[in-house]
Amino acid sequence: MTGWAADPAFKGGSVAAADWPLCHVRLQDDARFPWLILLPRVAGAVEIEDLSTLDRGRLIAETVRAGQCVRAMGQATERPIDKLNVAALGNVTAQLHVHVVGRRRDDGLWPDPIWGRGVAPRLTTDQARVWCGLVAGFR
Amino acid sequence: MTGWAADPAFKGGSVAAADWPLCHVRLQDDARFPWLILLPRVAGAVEIEDLSTLDRGRLIAETVRAGQCVRAMGQATERPIDKLNVAALGNVTAQLHVHVVGRRRDDGLWPDPIWGRGVAPRLTTDQARVWCGLVAGFR
Repeated sequence: MTGWAADPAFKGGSVAAADWPLCHVRLQDDARFPWLILLPRVAGAVEIEDLSTLDRGRLIAETVRAGQCVRAMGQATERPIDKLNVAALGNVTAQLHVHVVGRRRDDGLWPDPIWGRGVAPRLTTDQARVWCGLVAGFR
Repeated sequence: MTGWAADPAFKGGSVAAADWPLCHVRLQDDARFPWLILLPRVAGAVEIEDLSTLDRGRLIAETVRAGQCVRAMGQATERPIDKLNVAALGNVTAQLHVHVVGRRRDDGLWPDPIWGRGVAPRLTTDQARVWCGLVAGFR
């Protein structure tokens, strides 16, 4: 994993929340959704195919784990989620990353995808603290 | 895999293209993008977490394979793709499925996600034949 660093573009809209075996985990600064971003710490990776077979298995395992974490984040704020949205897009920031977003039927954008829609209200200090703590301690 | 059948909602906008070890593979009827949909043949699955660990590994392997296939589809029509977009959303049709879409910087929607945007021009008979043949024969 030598030479890997998160693209600076992620620092504007998200905060570091944890480091799992493969991925650096960031919490998106968007009060509308519990939303994690997984960044595999593999230098130069842009597509899933750029990972080794072993790391592909780790990525999907950590994607499932992030989904469980996002559910817990929804529960913690009394807004249990209805559906997980998982996506590796990278059209704007190419560095390989996977979005794991908790959606609700009353989230205002349902059933549309969320990327590039609306203006994200920032997390309150309390919400960021609760969610970051939850991600950091998630087992 | 007893009891699995594709949700009838997929039949309106896509055609059956292949059956891989885990997934039924459909070609989206949209001339703008080479676009495959992977449907794991696991009855009742809605989220990736609903798959066994073994099937999660097969899903990511087949997602990578679909990406390579989408690249080949782009090459076959002399529109090589710039970026793969991979997503498991399911807000409209809940049955677990993974979109694998080939994007180009000149595709008209770049860098936005494609779901729910614009009106899809249907594949011509020739394009559908070439792409379906390519998926069916992809090794």
